[in-house]
This record gives sequence, C-alpha cells and structure tokens, in this order.
Amino acid sequence: MIIVLKQGAKQSDIDHISEKLREMGLKVHVSEGEERTIIGAIGDERILRETPLEADPAVEKILPILKPFKLASRDFRRENSRIRVGEQVVGDKKIAIMAGPCTVESREGLLTVAKAVRKAGGGFLRGGAFKPRSSPYSFQGLGEEGLKYLAEAREETGLKVVTELMDPRDAEMVFNYADIIQIGARNMSNFTLLKEVGKLRKPVLLKRGLSATVKELLMSAEYILDEGNHEVILCERGIRTFENDTRNTLDLSAVPLIKGMSHLPVIVDPSHAVGRSDLVPPMCMAAVTAGADGLLVEVHENPQEAFCDGPQSLTIEVFNDLMTRLRTLAEVMGRTL
Amino acid sequence: MIIVLKQGAKQSDIDHISEKLREMGLKVHVSEGEERTIIGAIGDERILRETPLEADPAVEKILPILKPFKLASRDFRRENSRIRVGEQVVGDKKIAIMAGPCTVESREGLLTVAKAVRKAGGGFLRGGAFKPRSSPYSFQGLGEEGLKYLAEAREETGLKVVTELMDPRDAEMVFNYADIIQIGARNMSNFTLLKEVGKLRKPVLLKRGLSATVKELLMSAEYILDEGNHEVILCERGIRTFENDTRNTLDLSAVPLIKGMSHLPVIVDPSHAVGRSDLVPPMCMAAVTAGADGLLVEVHENPQEAFCDGPQSLTIEVFNDLMTRLRTLAEVMGRTL
Amino acid sequence: MIIVLKQGAKQSDIDHISEKLREMGLKVHVSEGEERTIIGAIGDERILRETPLEADPAVEKILPILKPFKLASRDFRRENSRIRVGEQVVGDKKIAIMAGPCTVESREGLLTVAKAVRKAGGGFLRGGAFKPRSSPYSFQGLGEEGLKYLAEAREETGLKVVTELMDPRDAEMVFNYADIIQIGARNMSNFTLLKEVGKLRKPVLLKRGLSATVKELLMSAEYILDEGNHEVILCERGIRTFENDTRNTLDLSAVPLIKGMSHLPVIVDPSHAVGRSDLVPPMCMAAVTAGADGLLVEVHENPQEAFCDGPQSLTIEVFNDLMTRLRTLAEVMGRTL
Amino acid sequence: MIIVLKQGAKQSDIDHISEKLREMGLKVHVSEGEERTIIGAIGDERILRETPLEADPAVEKILPILKPFKLASRDFRRENSRIRVGEQVVGDKKIAIMAGPCTVESREGLLTVAKAVRKAGGGFLRGGAFKPRSSPYSFQGLGEEGLKYLAEAREETGLKVVTELMDPRDAEMVFNYADIIQIGARNMSNFTLLKEVGKLRKPVLLKRGLSATVKELLMSAEYILDEGNHEVILCERGIRTFENDTRNTLDLSAVPLIKGMSHLPVIVDPSHAVGRSDLVPPMCMAAVTAGADGLLVEVHENPQEAFCDGPQSLTIEVFNDLMTRLRTLAEVMGRTL
Repeated sequence: MIIVLKQGAKQSDIDHISEKLREMGLKVHVSEGEERTIIGAIGDERILRETPLEADPAVEKILPILKPFKLASRDFRRENSRIRVGEQVVGDKKIAIMAGPCTVESREGLLTVAKAVRKAGGGFLRGGAFKPRSSPYSFQGLGEEGLKYLAEAREETGLKVVTELMDPRDAEMVFNYADIIQIGARNMSNFTLLKEVGKLRKPVLLKRGLSATVKELLMSAEYILDEGNHEVILCERGIRTFENDTRNTLDLSAVPLIKGMSHLPVIVDPSHAVGRSDLVPPMCMAAVTAGADGLLVEVHENPQEAFCDGPQSLTIEVFNDLMTRLRTLAEVMGRTL
Repeated sequence: MIIVLKQGAKQSDIDHISEKLREMGLKVHVSEGEERTIIGAIGDERILRETPLEADPAVEKILPILKPFKLASRDFRRENSRIRVGEQVVGDKKIAIMAGPCTVESREGLLTVAKAVRKAGGGFLRGGAFKPRSSPYSFQGLGEEGLKYLAEAREETGLKVVTELMDPRDAEMVFNYADIIQIGARNMSNFTLLKEVGKLRKPVLLKRGLSATVKELLMSAEYILDEGNHEVILCERGIRTFENDTRNTLDLSAVPLIKGMSHLPVIVDPSHAVGRSDLVPPMCMAAVTAGADGLLVEVHENPQEAFCDGPQSLTIEVFNDLMTRLRTLAEVMGRTL
Repeated sequence: MIIVLKQGAKQSDIDHISEKLREMGLKVHVSEGEERTIIGAIGDERILRETPLEADPAVEKILPILKPFKLASRDFRRENSRIRVGEQVVGDKKIAIMAGPCTVESREGLLTVAKAVRKAGGGFLRGGAFKPRSSPYSFQGLGEEGLKYLAEAREETGLKVVTELMDPRDAEMVFNYADIIQIGARNMSNFTLLKEVGKLRKPVLLKRGLSATVKELLMSAEYILDEGNHEVILCERGIRTFENDTRNTLDLSAVPLIKGMSHLPVIVDPSHAVGRSDLVPPMCMAAVTAGADGLLVEVHENPQEAFCDGPQSLTIEVFNDLMTRLRTLAEVMGRTL
Repeated sequence: MIIVLKQGAKQSDIDHISEKLREMGLKVHVSEGEERTIIGAIGDERILRETPLEADPAVEKILPILKPFKLASRDFRRENSRIRVGEQVVGDKKIAIMAGPCTVESREGLLTVAKAVRKAGGGFLRGGAFKPRSSPYSFQGLGEEGLKYLAEAREETGLKVVTELMDPRDAEMVFNYADIIQIGARNMSNFTLLKEVGKLRKPVLLKRGLSATVKELLMSAEYILDEGNHEVILCERGIRTFENDTRNTLDLSAVPLIKGMSHLPVIVDPSHAVGRSDLVPPMCMAAVTAGADGLLVEVHENPQEAFCDGPQSLTIEVFNDLMTRLRTLAEVMGRTL
C-alpha cells in the first residue's frame, strides 16, 4: 500500500505515520520526491483496510496494491473452478444452458417450457418462485407452490433447477428444492443473504448488481467463499447506464475480465440486460464468443400472456432456432453445447 | 396508457389489442396517424401493469400516463407528512439533525459523540450496530452490544436513536432499541426487508439506492406504506456515477423533485455521498437550502482512529462550527434548527 | 405526440392547447380519463419539436411517438446501406477490418504495421494524424506529415486510409488524403464539424460519444445525411460507466439495436472501449458475432514504445492470430473476412 | 509514480523497467513485497505520461501521484483567481448573475429580458446566437444577427454579454461582440476550439461536459491556460446519469471540490442541469450555499413561446422573486449580490 502525503507534510507527520504502520507489522519505505513524500507499506495489506489512514490530515491519498478479495482470485487458484451439479458441470468445456420463464406461473406452462428446453438440449430449468419486483402491486411469485412445480418439472425432464432465494428465512426451503440457488442482482450486496448461502452446501449463482463493479461482484463472492461454500457461479446481467433503448447495458467485456481476475465460472443473462426479445439471440451468441461458461435465458410458452418480463422472453420456436445456431458456434469456439 | 403500434400494424392487430383492453375494463380510443396507429386506454392503469402488451409483435411501445406508486404520491396526500418521533418531528419547520459515528465502536466513544451532538443542538443519534461492508474482511459491527450502547446514550442525552436493520430476523431486536429504523442504500430493493418494516409501527428511514431513480425510491417506500406503516422518511445519499473524486454524486435536485412528487419528508446524508470530510459541511448547507427536512451526518470523536468511514467523518469541533452556521441559514430559509 | 395534462387542468387549458395544435396543422384527439386528460396530436410531429408545449403550466409531460431522426432510420430505407470505398464495401457480407496504430508516429513504424495488416487480410489502415488528447501536455499528432505517411502506406499496400478530422478548417486537407474521414467520440456532438463533413463527398466514420445514447448517435448521423452525404458508417466504441477496470464499457447490444433502428452499417472499436490489449481479441470476436459490419483495431509494431494507447494495442503476432480466428468465425456467421 | 509489477515478475523485468525510468531522469526505488514488487519513480511525472509502461507485460498497473494538470491547480496558485470583465469581477465577494434566454430569438424579446435582468440586479446577459442542438431539424440560432442584438442590449442596459462559440472560424466574430466567450458542455473536449480561445485575450466560460470528471474539466481548462489565456471561469451544469426525472444530475459537490483543487472561479448553471423550471430556484439557492461564484440562469419573457428550452426557463416574475431570496442568502454566506 502506498500512502501519498500532502504537499507540505512535515517530518513529524512522516514519522507518526511510519510508526503507526510499523506497529501493524508492516515494513516501511519512505521516498521523498520533489513535490510529494510517499510512504510504501509492505506486508499484509488487509490489516490496513481497517485503519483509516486517509483520515490523517497529512495524507492526500492511499493507493492499494493488492486486490480486496482473495479466495475468489486467480492468484489464489490458477486453474478454472468447475462446479458440479449432479451429472452436469458448470465451468467446463460444455456450455451450460439455463432456460425457462422469469416466474413460475402455472404447472402446465412450466412443464411445457421444461420439456422444450430439454428437447432443445438445455441442462437447467430456471424459474422464480419468489420475485423481487420494483412495485408492490406487481405479481410476487407463487412461493413454495412454485418450488414444487419446479421439482416436478425436474422429475419429468431431468433438468437441474435454478431458482432465486430472497429471504434468509426461506434458505432451508429453497435448499430443499433447488439444484442451484440464485442470488439476484438486487441482492448482490445483501450480505446477510450472502453469508446464509455461504453456509449451505449447494452451488450458488450470484448475479452482478445493477451498479456493481466487477471487483465488488468478486467481493460479494468472497462472502460466500469465506463461509465455506466454494461452489459459486458468477453471472453478468447488465449494468445501469444512461442508455434507455435497452433496459440495462450488457457488459460482455466483464466475461474475459473476470476470467483473468478469478477462477470462478461466469455465465451471462442477456434477457434481463437488454429487456427486449429481439436482442436476446445475438447477445447469447456474442456472450458465448466472449467466453461465457453458460447462458441464463428467459423462455416462455406464450410471452404475450406472461405475468412478468414478457417483452424479453423468447418463444419456444425462437429458442430452438437459437440453440441450433449456438451449437455450431460452440464448436468453432472449441466447446460443446 | 398509450399503446403505440408498429408501422404496418394491421386492422386485425388493432382489433385484437382493443378487445384485450376492453376485457380489462378500460375505455379504448384508437387514433390512426400518418405513420403510426396509437391506442389510448383509459381507466385504472395499474391493471395493465400485469399484462405484457409489449410482448405483442404489433406493439412498438407502451407509454404509461400514471405514476407507478400511489400512497407515496403527492396526488394521494396534498399536505406534507410529519413523522413524530417522541417529542421530535421530522418533516416540520424544525430541521432534524441526526449525527453520530458510522459504526458504534465503543461505549465511551459513543457517549462522547452523543453528548457533543446533544450540546450542539442535534435531536438524533445515528450509529450502526450492523454494518453492510463490501468486503467480508472489514469490521461488521458490534451487533446487539452496539444497540445497547445506543440505548444507553439515549438515556444519558435524550437523543432519539437511528440505527440500521439488515436482516429481517433481527427486526424485533432492532425495533426494541431504535426510535427510527434505517434501511440502508444497499437494501433499498430488498423487498423482503421492506415488507418486514412495513409491518412494524415505528418510523423508517429509507435510503435511496446507489443506482435507484427517484421513482424507484418512491416505489420502495410504497412497499412499506402498503403494509400499513405510514411513517417513512426518505434519504438522498448520493448516486453512483463516473465521477471518482467523490465517492458518489450527491443529487440535491432530488430534494425538491421528491417534494413535488411525494408528501413524505426528505433528509440528506452528505457524508456517504461525498466520502470526504472537507466537502461535508458545504453540502450540509446546500442540502438545507435545497429544502431538506433533515441531515444525517457522520461525527466521530477521533476520525483518525475510526474503524469505518474515518475519511468522511467530521470531528466534534467541525460539527459544532457547522451547527452554528446551519442555525443562521435555517433562519433565512424560514426554518429552525 | 401525446400531451398529458396535469391533474386539475381546466377546460380552458384543454381548449387553448388544442387550438395551438390545430394551428400547426395537426389533428387533435382529446381523451378525458379518470385522473388525467390526454391530448393526441396526429400529423408531422417534427413541427411540434420547435414548440415548447412542455412549458405550458397545464402540461405534465409530452410523449413523442415518432423517432427524432428520419434519413438515418430503417423506416426511411428498408435495406442495408452499403458504403463503397474504392473496391471495398462496408455493410456487405465481407467484414471490414480497419487496423493500425492509434497515432501515426513514424514512417517506418506505419509501413511495418500497414504491411502486416495487408498480409493478414485487412482492408483498411487506421491511424491518427491529429489526436484529441485530454491533456495539452500529451503528444498531439504529426499533422499533415502523418497524413502523408498514411498516403504512402496506401500506395505501398493498397489499404484504404481511415483518419480523424478534428478541425473544420482541416476538412479539405484531410479530404485529400483520407478514404474514410473519422469523427471521433469527443466530436460526436460537434455539430459544426458534422455539417462540414456532410458537405463532403467521402465516407464518414462516426463514433458514438462517451455518453451518447444510440438515438443521439443517429441524430448526429442525421446532421451528416441532411447535408447530402449519405455515406455514414456508425461505430460503437464504449460508453462511460462507473466500472473502472475497463476504460469504458463496450455496449455490444448497440449493434443489433442500431441494425433494427437504422439502415447504416455499424462497426465496433473494442480497443478504445476496453483499454487493455488482453480483452481486445475476445471483444473483436463477440462484436462479429453480435452482427458488426467491421472492426476498428489498434495494432502497433511495438506497443511498449507507442506514444499513445500502448496498453490497448495488439502486437502484430496477436493480430495475426486474431485474424485467423475471425476468419473461421465469420464463416459460421455467414460472412467473410 | 508507482509501478506495480505482476506476481511472478522476474529480476530482469525489474532491471529493465528501472533502467528505462533512470534514462528518463527519474530516481528509482524498488520495494519487494510478499506478493508484489513495486517500483517508485521520483521526479517529473509528466515525462512518464508519454511512455507506455503499462504496455510492458510485467507491469500490472501504474499509480500516478501527481495531478495531470498544473496551471489550473491550487498548488500552482494559492489565492483565488478573480476574472475582471469591465467593472464586473467573477470570483470575488460579489456573486455573478448571468441571466437571459437560452437562444436569442428576437430583438424585442431580448431587450425585455435584458432590462428585467438589469433591474433585478444581474450583471450579465446570457444568450446564444449559435446553438448546439441534438437534432438538425431544431432551431440553430440567429448567428451574427443574434450577436448584434446582444450588443445592442449591452448598450441599453450596461450588462456584460456571455455567448457561446461553437466554430473556431467564428472566433473573431464572437470575440468582437462578447464580453465572456462560452464553450458549451458538448465542446468541452473539442481541443481545437479550446486552443483557439486560449489565443484570445477575453474571459472564457468553460462548461463541464456531460460525462466529464472534474479532473477532465480542469485538463480542458489547462488547454486554454497553456495557450496564454488565464481568464477561465468554470461552470458545473449537470452530468449524465441514469436518473431521468431531471434532464441531468446537478453535481453541486463539484463546487467545493473544484475550489480545493483549483484557483479558478466556479459558477453553476442549474437550468440545463435539471431541465425543469420548478427545480431551478431551489438549485440556484443551493449552488450559492455550496460556494458558487455565480449563476447562469435561463430567463425568458414568455417561456411558453420559447424556441428552445422553454420548460426550464424562468419567467421574469419568478426570476425577480429568486433574486430577492438570493440577496438575503448571499448576505448570510458573507457575500453580496
């Protein structure tokens, strides 16, 4: 960590800060420049995070050298993490396709979609039983009934179930039904919930928050890893920008960026990012080309009647067509579907 | 609600959509323009929110006419809401000053700050017992011990206590110690938590999320109001932008904007918004001038030793000086401190 | 255009506004709803843009129905525009590869890169003779000397030259050397410059501004088209967001979005968007998959010695490897390189 | 400047980089940490800006210590710059009020507003003769005719004239009519234009770009200062964010932030920032409280008939009332109007 002092800092300031750093067990290097004095502190930088050196009136700024996360970092683990979900693996050569409706609305509708996903070659069924909705007057999900329908669809099709947990008090219930527990974008910084799923022994799909940097996403993953759950799948799903012809802005460069910084698998959810079904297929294709380990796609048996997110859901026909094109693309990218 | 059809929409599309709208009990007006046909739907627009007309292939876009919140709106209640907290009132002529450390760190430190806040004329003590921290390796707060120190400081000084609730399972505990329950920016869209505090009968201070629009803040308030708790205080605390010389960008225009849209009181937290103590006093002054009903300010007995947010905390001396200047300003603005 | 009146608008307000609209030659529909009255105005909406109805105290908001651009829109021209540059075409089946250094630094360096680009199968040489730099103390480009080197490289290799125009007074000079005139992101809203290149008869490559929406990009293109120059190529190059591990955020969904809204070709510049050479190849691949008509890529014979943008420039080796992979990908996408 | 090397950097990398730095005349300090080696380079950091050390494969990142601007910095000049405009001064105790229509539309209208501004105690008349408009179909200004009306209004009222320059070829013409030359937000990074006004000997009002950081604004000011024109007034006018109930987000914390970083005067334009006349008065008040040296406010004799920006223009009555309130406020802030 580098501490840059203000112009005009006195020797006593330098001594005081150096002393403080040494007390914390850090090695200290002082460099006096023409305009500024800088102090380098060598050792475990994490110690320093608790110490508000920036509040010292002689300090202009602090420049951290190390990353603020550890277990999630590529430095900690060189090879890619592969998350096993039954006979499926996320983070391996095979691209994981997680498809289904935004919300579970009816038993019949869900089964129809699940069978179509299975037939098209998908491995996972996604669907929300609990839905975070901006307005209290919007449909909030079927709750445990929805989880039961998901379990039934798994029985019928063999697809693994991905579903969202919103309330720490529902953790056990969702644990019993889900194969992958999803933490939604709005809850990426709900640290209470992160610690809760960190205690479970089941893969977690962690979505990037609307205004979260990639570093913050990795720090949120660190909460889960630090509790002992090492099965974390990251998901890029668009960030909030000023552009308003798409719902959010899909940040595909996050895929190779995260791959460089972390060993965890990364999937992409284009449906929520763009919010319009016409842009979903090209963005699915681009995500795979950018190196994504999987896709989370909204498919509905009848988008015009969907309770939620109809405008961004693919019809089964469009999804089938997309899968055909993805298969050819995957091959070129040295992967399989 | 206005439904704009795509160029080339057929009569059958127009009929189909009109029929659908009429089934929902809405009155329908069709206007055929030179380039586009538009359909106006008159009636309770909220019905339409559940119906994904946008997924209809003939629809280009939907333009809502009404606001997506109701109980929080100025249309619903013309006069300002005044939130009573013991003998204090938020939203009245008197500006509410809520000051204290970011986190409760020690009994002695808290008492020192509380006495100083009291002496300077503040009415509320703020301090976190549970802290949402980006990194799992940062100090997470003292928990119930911190709440006890807050209660003790209330006993000693008569200040009302503002403290954050993060976990719905702690609702009862926090309810027992707090006078105002704070929902932090990271939890503004944690709808589980919003519903929980909606069931309590105690004022709630709801902070705007880092990437939330004012409309979304009001929709989150609506969650609390809709559960029956009408004592909601809104708080502007900076939004995330590309500017990085301040932690966030304080959006002071949100104050008169919200005042026009809603009857709820609005306070401002400049400390978290700017993240640097030198900018806090001018932003406190500007907030009051913009019409804020109160301020949430971080004050620490020794910012250089704070566990958290030291760089943005005011010393007691600076806080005292600020209070003097605020008093004169309040008078000019027709208010009191 | 839809005019939504405020709650409580009087009959006289409705009459006054309706009268105003009729005077402008528009047809008027009044719909009185339960909470709001709305007025629909049918006819050439562009007339209305000049009239500040929003300033009327009875008006709550104006909802436009038509797009604010015309010549650039897909409604105006259904088939894709193909821009001819000598024997090359942009917007056709063949993907246009425009590669070269950020800035022209030396005759030898430029020739080395140009030959490499040619050999790898590229069709265009990019390089700046005039450089917009945030700091006045940074290298500002070689000026006309740089243009001469570009022309010489064209002679030697047959590559077409893409270079930036910054000053309307240099228009003639740049016109004489360039095959495609580039308008940089910082000048996307420099309407003086847009009108100037609108008068020229040479293809223009218009880059999206750092904080411009896709609609604004199309309105800037409209400036050029409206002056009579129909040869406009649009370029997505990243937008400014809060994420700071990449220089900007590449918005690849803009590619299919623009393709739906406009007939103009769209290329992508990943180098400036991500600002790091390790992310450039995957983003080039993803851009092609998303439907881009071409790529603008920085290649330098020795990035470590580049005067400008070294960290984001590809070496010739990496560029060669990328071209090989792009060739295979293009085929799968039904295109050629 | 601090150079952080990648994990696993070899001794030969360290030697190579150190050698390079020494060749540039910098002193070098190498600190080998547990996980990373860092190199400190002491000396004139500006040299390093031209050298792309970040492109070196052994380098992880570069941390600059010094600010990227010099003449604009508070370090360069401790006391506030005061810009003299005839008998008026910007940056002194007296708050500069610059008011008038967005665009000059007619001789009569302009005179009406000018007289009102004068009577209310304003010192400057603002009005555009050349207007940057997003759409080519919007009114583009009266050109030199507008400048003549402005000069006539100056004759009549004694107000100083502030007007925008868009095209470097109009520099002389605008110079002849204006007392302060405005560079609009869209042209903040039009370096051609900045250099042009840097050569003039007349005060320049430089507006912050929609997506420019405060540092970038200061670097743009540096372009003007570096050419020899030291009379630069900075203007905060809102930045682009995701919030869409205001046109832009007014960043008032930029005022004290700039005051700390630079000696140049700072004024605020709330009209363009918020885009709605109801929010302009509170934001004018807040700006003065935040420490602004002046205000740029749109006032129109009849906003409902304005060609441009009607919705954000104040009527003369509202402006008069605002001036009365500003006068009282200025006094409390130790300033005058």
